[in-house]
This record gives sequence, structure tokens and C-alpha cells, in this order.
Amino acid sequence: MRKDKRSLNSLRSITVVPDFVKHPEGSVLIQVGDTKVICNASIEDRVPPFMRGKGKGWITAEYAMLPRATDQRNIRESSKGKVSGRTMEIQRLIGRALRSVVDLDRIGERTVWIDCDVIQADGGTRTASITGAFIAMVLAFGKLLESKRIEKMPVTDFLAATSVGVLPDGNETLDLNYEEDSKALVDMNIVMTGSGEFVEIQGTGEEATFTHNQLLKMLTLANEGINEIMDIQKDILGELGQRVGETVPYNQ
Amino acid sequence: MRKDKRSLNSLRSITVVPDFVKHPEGSVLIQVGDTKVICNASIEDRVPPFMRGKGKGWITAEYAMLPRATDQRNIRESSKGKVSGRTMEIQRLIGRALRSVVDLDRIGERTVWIDCDVIQADGGTRTASITGAFIAMVLAFGKLLESKRIEKMPVTDFLAATSVGVLPDGNETLDLNYEEDSKALVDMNIVMTGSGEFVEIQGTGEEATFTHNQLLKMLTLANEGINEIMDIQKDILGELGQRVGETVPYNQ
Amino acid sequence: MRKDKRSLNSLRSITVVPDFVKHPEGSVLIQVGDTKVICNASIEDRVPPFMRGKGKGWITAEYAMLPRATDQRNIRESSKGKVSGRTMEIQRLIGRALRSVVDLDRIGERTVWIDCDVIQADGGTRTASITGAFIAMVLAFGKLLESKRIEKMPVTDFLAATSVGVLPDGNETLDLNYEEDSKALVDMNIVMTGSGEFVEIQGTGEEATFTHNQLLKMLTLANEGINEIMDIQKDILGELGQRVGETVPYNQ
Amino acid sequence: MRKDKRSLNSLRSITVVPDFVKHPEGSVLIQVGDTKVICNASIEDRVPPFMRGKGKGWITAEYAMLPRATDQRNIRESSKGKVSGRTMEIQRLIGRALRSVVDLDRIGERTVWIDCDVIQADGGTRTASITGAFIAMVLAFGKLLESKRIEKMPVTDFLAATSVGVLPDGNETLDLNYEEDSKALVDMNIVMTGSGEFVEIQGTGEEATFTHNQLLKMLTLANEGINEIMDIQKDILGELGQRVGETVPYNQ
Amino acid sequence: MRKDKRSLNSLRSITVVPDFVKHPEGSVLIQVGDTKVICNASIEDRVPPFMRGKGKGWITAEYAMLPRATDQRNIRESSKGKVSGRTMEIQRLIGRALRSVVDLDRIGERTVWIDCDVIQADGGTRTASITGAFIAMVLAFGKLLESKRIEKMPVTDFLAATSVGVLPDGNETLDLNYEEDSKALVDMNIVMTGSGEFVEIQGTGEEATFTHNQLLKMLTLANEGINEIMDIQKDILGELGQRVGETVPYNQ
Amino acid sequence: MRKDKRSLNSLRSITVVPDFVKHPEGSVLIQVGDTKVICNASIEDRVPPFMRGKGKGWITAEYAMLPRATDQRNIRESSKGKVSGRTMEIQRLIGRALRSVVDLDRIGERTVWIDCDVIQADGGTRTASITGAFIAMVLAFGKLLESKRIEKMPVTDFLAATSVGVLPDGNETLDLNYEEDSKALVDMNIVMTGSGEFVEIQGTGEEATFTHNQLLKMLTLANEGINEIMDIQKDILGELGQRVGETVPYNQ
Repeated sequence: MRKDKRSLNSLRSITVVPDFVKHPEGSVLIQVGDTKVICNASIEDRVPPFMRGKGKGWITAEYAMLPRATDQRNIRESSKGKVSGRTMEIQRLIGRALRSVVDLDRIGERTVWIDCDVIQADGGTRTASITGAFIAMVLAFGKLLESKRIEKMPVTDFLAATSVGVLPDGNETLDLNYEEDSKALVDMNIVMTGSGEFVEIQGTGEEATFTHNQLLKMLTLANEGINEIMDIQKDILGELGQRVGETVPYNQ
Repeated sequence: MRKDKRSLNSLRSITVVPDFVKHPEGSVLIQVGDTKVICNASIEDRVPPFMRGKGKGWITAEYAMLPRATDQRNIRESSKGKVSGRTMEIQRLIGRALRSVVDLDRIGERTVWIDCDVIQADGGTRTASITGAFIAMVLAFGKLLESKRIEKMPVTDFLAATSVGVLPDGNETLDLNYEEDSKALVDMNIVMTGSGEFVEIQGTGEEATFTHNQLLKMLTLANEGINEIMDIQKDILGELGQRVGETVPYNQ
Repeated sequence: MRKDKRSLNSLRSITVVPDFVKHPEGSVLIQVGDTKVICNASIEDRVPPFMRGKGKGWITAEYAMLPRATDQRNIRESSKGKVSGRTMEIQRLIGRALRSVVDLDRIGERTVWIDCDVIQADGGTRTASITGAFIAMVLAFGKLLESKRIEKMPVTDFLAATSVGVLPDGNETLDLNYEEDSKALVDMNIVMTGSGEFVEIQGTGEEATFTHNQLLKMLTLANEGINEIMDIQKDILGELGQRVGETVPYNQ
Repeated sequence: MRKDKRSLNSLRSITVVPDFVKHPEGSVLIQVGDTKVICNASIEDRVPPFMRGKGKGWITAEYAMLPRATDQRNIRESSKGKVSGRTMEIQRLIGRALRSVVDLDRIGERTVWIDCDVIQADGGTRTASITGAFIAMVLAFGKLLESKRIEKMPVTDFLAATSVGVLPDGNETLDLNYEEDSKALVDMNIVMTGSGEFVEIQGTGEEATFTHNQLLKMLTLANEGINEIMDIQKDILGELGQRVGETVPYNQ
Repeated sequence: MRKDKRSLNSLRSITVVPDFVKHPEGSVLIQVGDTKVICNASIEDRVPPFMRGKGKGWITAEYAMLPRATDQRNIRESSKGKVSGRTMEIQRLIGRALRSVVDLDRIGERTVWIDCDVIQADGGTRTASITGAFIAMVLAFGKLLESKRIEKMPVTDFLAATSVGVLPDGNETLDLNYEEDSKALVDMNIVMTGSGEFVEIQGTGEEATFTHNQLLKMLTLANEGINEIMDIQKDILGELGQRVGETVPYNQ
Repeated sequence: MRKDKRSLNSLRSITVVPDFVKHPEGSVLIQVGDTKVICNASIEDRVPPFMRGKGKGWITAEYAMLPRATDQRNIRESSKGKVSGRTMEIQRLIGRALRSVVDLDRIGERTVWIDCDVIQADGGTRTASITGAFIAMVLAFGKLLESKRIEKMPVTDFLAATSVGVLPDGNETLDLNYEEDSKALVDMNIVMTGSGEFVEIQGTGEEATFTHNQLLKMLTLANEGINEIMDIQKDILGELGQRVGETVPYNQ
């Protein structure tokens, strides 16, 4: 049993508040244990220069933490005048993951801006961001459908993420909180689709390594956890969620 | 009567959620109408270089908006690599205002970092930030009192802020929302203490001017509004609020 | 009586050298006591992107100090790679103030760039900048009138600024020099028009507060001082000054 | 068969020129197919601030490409004034990977700076960088051993990297060149140790996904390729390579 | 004869206003034709990190132009957030030139900051800056001598600069103004000492070249011009100027 | 005799490897003694904004050093976020020098990007860069000639550079290596054409000066050295080199 009484294969409790902020086309507050992230999806009616004139859309993500989302206050990245390598890695991951389940040809020359702002951090902020951002994005596409600006839901499958790791006791463990994560020998973030395929696997042994067998156990844990998370996503999205997959990208 | 049914001298409804984020020494979510700001106060056990060795503390503030706090998405200041002039003006104002009611000699060589992060904006974000930051700061000092790191509440008086303006119909009006503010001929932000004195008056006629008489009417409106706001602050702070003013700065 | 033998309601001596730099459309060196500012107004035949296609003009200001304008040398902002919050506040103030007395519809799609460069500082640099920049701007519009690029003087009223404050002895005092300013309990910058209306009131009690009565006394002092300053402006501008106000903005 | 006549499980030819640059403690030019990277390892006799006083060392990496290492010229990152997200991701990966096979306690308060500069790019620059940087680092530790500044080789195991992917024809394929990589549905970079454990797995399906079975096939290909690469590393390092593993980190 | 009626070997008229700004230890306004530069010399009682503990001083220079010093307004370098290559080249030149005639061992661990701010430009701003900065620096050392902080004038020789060039008519010409400079085939800046030796020669043929013979003619013109300029420097410096050369650097 | 056994008027040995990198239109590795520079020339089919619509081309250069090109590791300029003054000076010099021997009217609206990347430094990196960049540029124009995108070789003359200096023993000396350069009293970089004319002379006495006679001796040494260097350039360029000078710029 873990400090917070969970078993090794248990997720932390997840709650999602839809329409948390009023202005964005899609907005949720996602809470995974003590990690809280505001995920906003904004639709802009143009694409970045490198995408212009192709008749298709783009999805890009930004990620940030409030300075005191963590135990010690961090210097604000706007004050430092630059974005850290960690932030860049995370926002590239979020954007890439979401693009893997959207048929960009079906959204027209529009950009979906995903903003994941962590207001309280307790481990797993990047995976919570992906899980929440997926919901916010589907809500935003819902607005486009409602106003007939697009005809079909361009999202081809569900998408969610979680972390797994190997703790110092050698156990493969699901959904690490901050205390567990900071001690883990191996840390792995996994993004999967509703059909059980992988979108991203990022496994890292900082000052440690891991075996093929450990890898397989972690993948199994992650798969089970992600299935549970998707049930929550479906619950929140309701009828709109049932439209996910109504198109299959015609560019494949 | 105004669009949102308020009279000219009515505030929007205000709610304050204390302890909104778990890590900071003081934290509130303040909501003024549709404007929502997370105000966190962090205590750091050292002061910036220019204050070292003086045996006294410092208070500094940072302000930011989530990119989609507004109707149109704004570019993130960390991505632009620099903080806008508007942001700088506001964070300097917040810090200056809070310092005016704190006896810095009584907090030791500590810095109070105030972070005001606007998650939803509908006018009056800087005055809501000051009002909320005051509460967060008092809560943070409460932690120092509790753990006996300081002996007396170093806050010498209550502090709150609101906006007033002259609308195109010529009426002096209290607590402008975004729509009113964007049309106002004159915009004035006022910060006052519990004893009814001014800390800051910033009145601006962008492409317009205002008379002495209009100024006096706006000051009266603001004074009444700020008194109401302070009742809410006192309500939230309870016993801790009663310790405000237990010291008078001995450096005056 | 004050250190420099002035009474509480006396301005420092003011001199203005028109056409100080040869290239700009309008240029003055303004000297207020020992504060010296070069104010240049440049006309550019286009407007910034957010103003394009509206058939009207824009006025924007930049402010800087030579590194050794002050008693201690300051690091050059170009070397630091960023503009300080103080500089931003001041240049926003100057631009806003000037725009309040210009009918932007009458200047066509042109930008007036105001550059205020302080070559020697002794308090009141921002108010001296506004007073001098007004003259430089009118001179620049004179060039446009002369060459028939505009038909009427687009300036609707005179504009000048000064500072007032409360000194540690409790006296409300006009036009503070640096030594007075650095000790003042309250510091207030006031910008007014020729018709006696306010454009900006910025009153700040850094680590202090001020009463309604003190405010009224400061406003009176400022009003009298600004009237004197405008006599000097009129003297310098001569016939060109008499054209100020020949139009009333038709967008009001 | 692939365009360059390789079979699906063949590496490109690899050559390593040791001591390519004369100043660094360790230096190699590594060539993997048409990808050429200069890997320099520099020993500095101090550690970054966050590591001071712990009696142990640090390893950090930087990565860059010459502007014309690629088919189209890229803007130099020093001219842009910031490092791209891609560069940051890669240099964080290189540093993390190398640290996983070094006993930092055995190198004293020293920093090993790894500089990987790509002079010609044809896919797989990050994995070639890791493979080459490992050799450069061991050479640099050789200098410390020679001059008796350390007593034992602090490197605990061999380390090398390669890429695998799924091409549009559905085949799992080893060591992608640029043309293959730009078309691949799935791209995976794998870093392994001499004992066959994983250090990093980074698998990405940009606008695509991959199955558990595909993952297993890719891991097998990578494992075989990395074994071949390590034979080349051992060949280059000769006797020095035989000292790898003579210590086991005593902090584990 | 030239447009401004000068002969080919004539300087423009030069005037120098000493003590132009009140705060700096040394300050002049130098005017060479229509080029006007404020040269301030500030003494700081410490040296930059790379010079600490050597018992000797340092001299460094910064150069800037007011945005409207030129015919077209330039963007302010502080707004651009970086200093141009041209500015860097010039400020490195000024600092290097001044250091060549100062015995840094005799000024103690002090830094002399030279600030050359061009308020009006008409060609030759870098050479006017050197000529004026030399005077400002000697004045600043005068303050150190007066207050007995140093014993002897640390300046070993006079120093001045001018430009020469080849105009499109093929004539070697002294002291080019902006119009001449912008058409010149060859542009050469020369810095010399009172004893007739060279400190810097920077000759450039932008889209042109020059012969050995042209070089010799230009050097002769420059030498004669610099002698005239030094007479003006001596005149301004009076008795203080007679102390130049009273020490010979003991590190040579 | 010098430490490396050269006489005062001897160059270090020079080798040039053409086509060193495969992607650029022109590429060489030039080695001058222990100084090694990769010089790449890239052709881009457009010109910078300030050159558009003139029907002519542009040549621009960038220069950098690998962090460990030198004895001590330097911080990477991309990490510092800005380019040093030294780098700017050098890249401006390289671009200016190359433009002096190219008829920009004959290359159409194209930009030639020259990238000089020093991989090992031992003095004279800027002059080696110019010498090598000239060859890379001619090779790149060779590609344009081959593909009939231009008709005639637009290079009007050969161009090479070397350094000369005065060593502490008072001797004028050719082609200084790093050790000599760091002790030299005078350092001079000279760029000349095949017809024996000067393009750039940059002579600097850092904390020293030099006489007219010393200047003449240095110019003679440089002239002889540059003649030898051009023989090597001609040897490498073969037939392509014989086309240099087949046009004379028609804008002169």
C-alpha cells in the first residue's frame, strides 16, 4: 500500500469541471489527486504561416505553472524572459498528442490553441494536461459543430495519458504523485487512444535503468489506468463524446 | 440603470474563496462579478539584494492573465519573452499599495511575494487583485504568527481598491465591468485604507478630460464602495482581521 | 522656505530652446530647474498595424535617460536588453496625455513619435517631458500646416504637467526637485488642459497615505502652477500657439 | 530493401575519428551514414551552483547544428537569440543519458561539458550524438585517470543509442536516415546500456499511433543495432574501454 | 571645393562645451560641424570581475544615438532589446582607443565609464566621440587629482580622431560629413596620439578598393587634421592638459 | 626564428578541403596552422527586405566558434541569447569584404549566406574565414553557372586576408598564431584583392601605438603573404578560378 492508501495499480481520484472559464470555446478544470490544471481550447480563424493555403488546420499547445503551484515558489517564466526546456518539452508533447487524433483536413484553416495552466501541482501535470486538454478540445469542436462551421466531429478517437514508474522498492506503480515521482528510479509517461494504441511513450531512467520486463509491466498498468480515465472523459462529454470517431481521416 | 441592472453606485457581487491553492502561505480566489483572480502570498526567508542587512522585509507583486482570460486570446508573455508595460504598471501598483499598510520593520528579513493571476477577466482586474492580495497577505502573516516567527500582525490598516469612471452618458459610475470600462471617458482606480485615507489615485482621461467636480463625485463613489468591500474582507479574515492595526509602524 | 529659496507654491525657473535638434519636425530642449529634457517630435507617414485603414493618426511616446543624467550612473537600458517598468509607465503616460488634446482624425494616417530624452535629471522628468513634448508636437504640426499636408491645427487645447507632494513637514508643495521628491510622503503628478480640466491624476503614497483635504490642497497648487507653465508655452509657440483649439474634434 | 540498399535491420556504416579537435579533454567526429557530429567533452573543475558542496560532479550537454548542416539553411540560434524547443529536448536527453552510466560521486566537484555540434545532418543526429558523446566522455575521463586526478574509471557501463521507426509500408525499420524519418509514421529513439537495459525510450506517433506488437518489434531491432554500435565503441576505446564498469556506483 | 565650401584638407568647425551635464565627473558637448555628441566620463570605485584584485583600473565606453539624431528616426535600441553590431563596433573602438593612452596602473581599482550620446548626427560621430571622450576623461581625472585620490595624471599622451575618405571624384578628402560619407568609395577612421603615432586605422572599401598610394595620401590628411584637433583639446583643457604625459606607464 | 620555427615573413601551412559538407552550394574546410574553419556558402532565392525589387543580390556572413574551439570552453552564444560584439565585428567584416569583389547586379535577387564556423582556433580565425569563404562563394557561384541560373562569374577579383603584427621584441611579423597574437603590441588584419588593392585595413594598438614606418613594414609583409595565399586559392578553384574577373561590375 502507498502513503495515500492507494494500491499500486490505482489512479488518484479525478474530477473535471467543464466550462470553468467563460470566454474560451472549450474550458475545463481537471483535478487529478491534488494536481489541478485549467485547460482552455481557443479557436482562431487562421493558421500559422507554415500551414497557410493548405486548406487544413493546426493544433498547438502552451503549458505553464502558476509560480506557487509548487511547494517552493518558482520564478515566473515571463519575468525570466524565456521558457524553460521542461516547459517546451511538455507543450510540444501536448500538441503532438492531440494532433494524432484529429483530422486536420476537416477543421478548415483554423488553429486550436490549447492552454494548460497548472494552478496546483502534485505530480503528473503533463498527463493531466493531456487528459483535460482532450476534453476542452472536443468541447471547442462542439461549438464549431453547433454553429455549423464544421459538419462532422474531426476527432477520430479518444485520447488520455497517465504516468507509471518504478519506485525505489522495485515496484511498478501507476499514477505517481509528486513525492513518489521525485523518488522514482524510472518515470514513464504514456499517451494512448481509445482503441488501445500508443501515441507517445516517454520512459526515462534518470541515474538508473530498466529492464524489458519492467517495461512490459508498466505498459500494462498504464493501459488499465487510461481505460478508466477514458470512462470519465466519456461521462463528461456525453452526447458530444459519442460523435468522436464519426470521421476517419481521409488523408490516411 | 446599467445593463447588468446595477445602479450607478452599486458594486458587483464579490465572493472570496480562502485557501484556494494548497501550497502558498496565503491564497484566495477572489471573484468580482465575472472577474476572477487567484491571489497567492508566498513568504521567502530572504530579501532582495538592495534590502539586505537592514533587518526589515520587502513586499513585491507579480500580475498576469491566462491567455484566454479575455474574450480574444492574448499571446502569453513568457512566449513573447517580455512583460508588457501594462503588466508592469499593474504589478508595481499592487506592490506599492500593499507596502503602504505593512510595517516592514516587523516582518524581519523576509520577502512576501504576491502573485495575482487573472483566470477570467471582465474589468477591474487590478483593483480586484489588490483587494484579494490584501486578504492573501494577511493570511500569510497569520501563518508567521501561528508559528511564532513574528509576534504581532505587521499590517497597520485594511486596504482595498475599486474603480470609478465617467460613462459616455456623463454619469459618474462605480465598479466598471469590461464593457463599461472600454467605453468610459474617464477611468479612475482608487486604493484606500480602512481609516479612509488614499493610498493611490490614478485617474486617466484617454482621449477625454474631466472636471474638478467630476473628480469629487468619483471620489465619493469610490469611498462608499471601498467601505463595502472592507466589510467582506473583515468577514473572511475573522479573528485574524481583528489583529490588523495592532501595531503602528515605529518608523513613522 | 525651501532649500532652493522657493516658496511652497513656486515653480522652478523654466526655459525652452526651440529647434534644439535640426532633423526632427519639432524639437525643444526644456529646462525646469536643473532637469533638462530633449523633446523631439517626428512625423512618420504611416500608422502602426492596429490603426491601419481607419483614416486617422496615432501619437506614441518613448522616454529615456542618459546613463549619467543622475547622480549615480545607471545601466543603459539597451545594454540590459529591456526597458524598465518605470520607463514604460512614463512613456505610456506621455503618449496618453498628448492624445487627449489631439483630434487624431485630422492628422491622416500618420504617426507622431515623441522622444523625450533626459540629459540631466533633478526631479520632475516626466512632467517636464509632457510640457516640452506638447511644444515639440505643436511645432511638428506647424510643419505639416506649412506644407499644406493638413489644413487645420489638430491640437484642441493646451496641455502641461507638474508635480505636487506632501513633504515630511506636512506641507503641500509645488514642483518637487529630486531631493524633495525622494523624501516626500506623497507624490502626485498632474496633467491639465488649458481649459482647466484634468487629463491625468497620479497620486501615490509610498509607505504613506493622504487625506481628502491634502488632495484638494495639492490640486489647487498644481492648477496654479500649470497656468504659469502654459504662459511660457504660449510665449514660445507665438502665432502657432494661437491656432491651438481652432478645431474641435468632430468625433466627440 | 531500402533506397540505400540496406535491409530493414541494418545500421548505416559508422566511423569514429578520435581526437578530432585538439583542445578538448575528449573529442571525436562520429559519422553515421551521412550524419556527422563533432562530440567534445570538456572537464571544468567546478560544478553549477545547485551541486556545490556535495562532493560530487555533474554532466551537462549542449547540442547545435551548423546552419547548413541540413538541406535548407536554418537560422542560427544565436542570431534568433533563443534556443528552440527541439534543441532543448535533445540536449536534455543527451545529458540525462550520460549521467545514467556515470558514478557522479567518483568524479569530484567537476563538470563534464558535452558539446555535440552537427556539421552534416541526415537523420539520427540525436542518437549519433549520444553514441559519440559517450566515447568523448570516456576519453576525457581517461585524461583524468592519466593525471591521477581520479583513481577509477567512473563510467559504470557502455551506452549507445539508435532510432527505429515504422515506415509507411508498415515495416519496423532500424536506423532511419532523413528521408525515411520524414515519412515515418512512428519514430522511436532508444538509449541502452551494455548490460541490455533501457535508459530512455521515446516513441512518438506524429499524426499516427502504434500497437503493442509494433513496439515489441521495434525494441528488438533497436537492441540488436545497439549491440553492434557498442562493438565499434569498444574498438575505438581499446584498453580504456575495458575499464568501463570497474566501479559500481556506491550510491545505489 | 566641397558643397559646404571647405577645401579637401579642411576640418569642419569644432566647438566644445565643458561641464555640459552637472553630475558626471567629466562632461563635454562636442560639436563637429552639425554632429553633436554629449561625452560623459563617470568614475566608479570598482572594476569589472575580470579585473578584480590586480590593483589597476579599467576604461569602458558606451555609444548611442537619440532616435532622431538622424534624418530618419531610428528604432531605439532599448526597445529592440539589443544593441546593433554597428553600436558594438563603435563602443569597442572608443574604449580601446582611450585605454591606449592611460596608465591603468595609476588609477587604482576604478572604472572610467565613457558615455557618448549622439544628439545630432551629420557624419563622423565615432571620431567626434573619441575626440570629445578624451577631454571628458581628462576632466574626470582632474577631479581625482583635485581630491587627491590619485597623485599624477594617468594620461600619457593626447588622443584624437578623424575620418578621411576617397570621394567618387577620386579625391582623398578630410573629415567627411554625412552626405560625403554616404557616397564615399573608401572610408577610413584614424586615431592618433599627440606624438604622431597610430592607435587605430580602420579603412574600408565597401563595394570598392583602394591603392597603397591612396592610403598614404589619406594618412597624411588625417595626421594634419588631428594636429589641429589637438590644439582645440589643449585649449579647452588649459592647465590640466599640461599634465598629460607627466607619467609614463611603468608597465612598458 | 619563431617558436614554431617560422621566419618573420612566413605563413603557416594552409590546406583546403573542398566540398567538406554535402548540402551547401559551396563548402570548404580551411586549415591555417592549427586554425580550422568550416566555410559554407548557401544560395537563397530571395533578398532581405531592404534590397527587394532592385534586381540585384546580397551577400551576408555569419561567424561562430564551437564552444571548445579554444583552450578554455566558451559559453555558447545561443545559450547566452546574444551575439558578442567581437562576433558581430567579424561577421560584418567578412560580408563587407566579399561584397567588394562581387558584382551584385549579376547575381539576381539572390542572397549568398556565408557561414564560417571555427571548429579549432589558434589565431587568425577571421582572416582564415575570409580566405576560405571566398573559395566557398566561388564554388557556390559555380553551381549557379552550371545550372545556367547566371551567365557569367559575378566575382570580379580574388580576395584573401591575413594578419600581421608587432611582437614585443619590436619585430613586424606575418600571420600570428594565438600565442603570438595574445602578446602582440599591434595587431593588424588586412584584406586585399588579386590586383593588389586594399579592401580592409584594421590596425589596432591595444594599450600600445605604432609608427608610420611600422605600418609600412606590416603592409609589405601582408601583401607578400596574401599573394602566396591566392596561389593556393587558384590551385583549389582550378578552371572555375580562371573565370574570376570575367565580368567587371557595370555599376562602376
